[in-house]
Amino acid sequence: MNGQGDGNGDGNRAYGRTSFQRSKSHFADRITADGRDGWPVAAARYRLVVSRACPWASRAVISRRLLGLEAAVSMAIADPIQDDRSWRFTLDPDGRDPVLGIRFLSEAYDKRETGYPGGVSVPAIVDVPTRQLVTNDYQRITLDFATEWTALHREGAPDLYPEGLRDEIDEVMANVYEDVNNGVYRAGFATGQAEYEAACSGVFRRLELLTERLARQRYLVGDTITEADIRLFTTLVRFDAVYHGHFKCNRWKLTENQVLWAYARDLFQTPGFGDTVDFDHIKRHYYQVHTGINPTRIVPLGPDLSGWLTPHHREELGGRPFGDGTPPGAVRPGEDVPAAGRP
Amino acid sequence: MNGQGDGNGDGNRAYGRTSFQRSKSHFADRITADGRDGWPVAAARYRLVVSRACPWASRAVISRRLLGLEAAVSMAIADPIQDDRSWRFTLDPDGRDPVLGIRFLSEAYDKRETGYPGGVSVPAIVDVPTRQLVTNDYQRITLDFATEWTALHREGAPDLYPEGLRDEIDEVMANVYEDVNNGVYRAGFATGQAEYEAACSGVFRRLELLTERLARQRYLVGDTITEADIRLFTTLVRFDAVYHGHFKCNRWKLTENQVLWAYARDLFQTPGFGDTVDFDHIKRHYYQVHTGINPTRIVPLGPDLSGWLTPHHREELGGRPFGDGTPPGAVRPGEDVPAAGRP
Repeated sequence: MNGQGDGNGDGNRAYGRTSFQRSKSHFADRITADGRDGWPVAAARYRLVVSRACPWASRAVISRRLLGLEAAVSMAIADPIQDDRSWRFTLDPDGRDPVLGIRFLSEAYDKRETGYPGGVSVPAIVDVPTRQLVTNDYQRITLDFATEWTALHREGAPDLYPEGLRDEIDEVMANVYEDVNNGVYRAGFATGQAEYEAACSGVFRRLELLTERLARQRYLVGDTITEADIRLFTTLVRFDAVYHGHFKCNRWKLTENQVLWAYARDLFQTPGFGDTVDFDHIKRHYYQVHTGINPTRIVPLGPDLSGWLTPHHREELGGRPFGDGTPPGAVRPGEDVPAAGRP
Repeated sequence: MNGQGDGNGDGNRAYGRTSFQRSKSHFADRITADGRDGWPVAAARYRLVVSRACPWASRAVISRRLLGLEAAVSMAIADPIQDDRSWRFTLDPDGRDPVLGIRFLSEAYDKRETGYPGGVSVPAIVDVPTRQLVTNDYQRITLDFATEWTALHREGAPDLYPEGLRDEIDEVMANVYEDVNNGVYRAGFATGQAEYEAACSGVFRRLELLTERLARQRYLVGDTITEADIRLFTTLVRFDAVYHGHFKCNRWKLTENQVLWAYARDLFQTPGFGDTVDFDHIKRHYYQVHTGINPTRIVPLGPDLSGWLTPHHREELGGRPFGDGTPPGAVRPGEDVPAAGRP
């Protein structure tokens, strides 16, 4: 999401308020099949800029893998540690994104709107020919991948946002967003005890409700993986590694909740999920960027992550992960997560 | 231990060093049966000053209970939150200790040595007639309770430092001190990644070794509770509540280690251990005092502590908790931990 620590400044915290406020995306153009916003779906035209540390960007990374959009939409991976100019391409040779030729994601923002005063966030989609930002609308990008980019989906791509289930998916995602995806941030960036307690309690109240639901069914909505699962997964996979300690969401660890831990492992072990996760990026980003809550910038050695690959037995609940489709193939060369980052 | 956050200043960190150094106790007079340091064992003459938050002081609280020294040595309980004048009696009426009549423990230090430049630490024993500090030697106080104060022990008091086992007890305690009792502090107050990693690795390496030992036997040395168990317990009981998150000792939670978790619960449920533990004091002290590592001073809601009272099945390993002695009786009126602080 935003540069220099979500919620620590630049746009994520509204002026004059004391509680954490996630800002709306400023650039909300949509890339659609009919190109009505001026940005038609097209192969090899757009570049997705992400950080593997960021849960909001990771939605798009997973969605792109599941739908087989890797060839159609190339991907730039930012350094998990921002500096005061925000997300940067210091992992690339010469510190420049090899496709866009820029050093900072902010350059694409500037190209779109000179002097834009807001934050620089991932996920972002940049138009390669003009080097300008098209959208940083984290709530919309994956839905459009699922519904507008269908002509470029791989053969066997799943339907991640099935028409008949959208009302239910939207409702689940709204609750997950408020209490879980964003709830952990409200807990972690709280500046007062009451604000923290309300957020932290909300996180666990919602997780308990989700536990009941997921004790009976393999996936959140219907019997296949949908966008709702992607959005819950990106928070769960970070839970013990960063939210439990760093954000003080510590009533219990994910590994202590049998149902959610098995659910998260099931997804982690599904092609397109775990193969996108870089625990090294995740841990270094949170612990080193948010100096307001971790002034020493020390990154903890724990937790032990080896359990992510243990059997989950969720098949016993039935479900068809990809519905009538198939799992995605191997990770594209150059996009694999270094072994060091694996559990 | 020290005021205003162990290791955050006043004496616990040696000048010119970058790693955390626990200071030796400056006042090391001993209260003995023969009174050779000028301080003879005597009933109702000395006052033990503690914080229930502090693991070093808690050794003395437990030892006093197990040995039945409550009537012989009265106890003052400091506020878990120090101010810049260190430990204070703000929990008492008018903010004064009712026996010593002082507002700050430092007054007893000043009475002993004017202008003493070191830190003010608990446990401390104060001579009531003269209001002056006798000792703050946290390594020695409990050993002397066990061996010098025998004339005032209750009937059925256990032998916490049996002569025939002292070499083994001393060796176990030395390792536990270095790697565990103090290791968690070296991890938590590390100012650099390497320093932290060495300390944190040491904590878990030692805990793994202790796990092997305690898988086979109920207590650390011999088949009864000794001083060694008291010293390990005071760190273990704080592990998930504060050391796991606040001090980043997060490879696993105590509750995830079957052997140590059962061992800790066994002791917690033994009279004289759990009835001295105030989780509210513990959590507020660590999270609110150490602003260098928790600038927001927010106290986490977790972890769920209800498991402390669940069956531990350690009786199956045999052992005689109090040897030829008996468990201590009920907690002295006025010294019980408020229910709010219980798990």
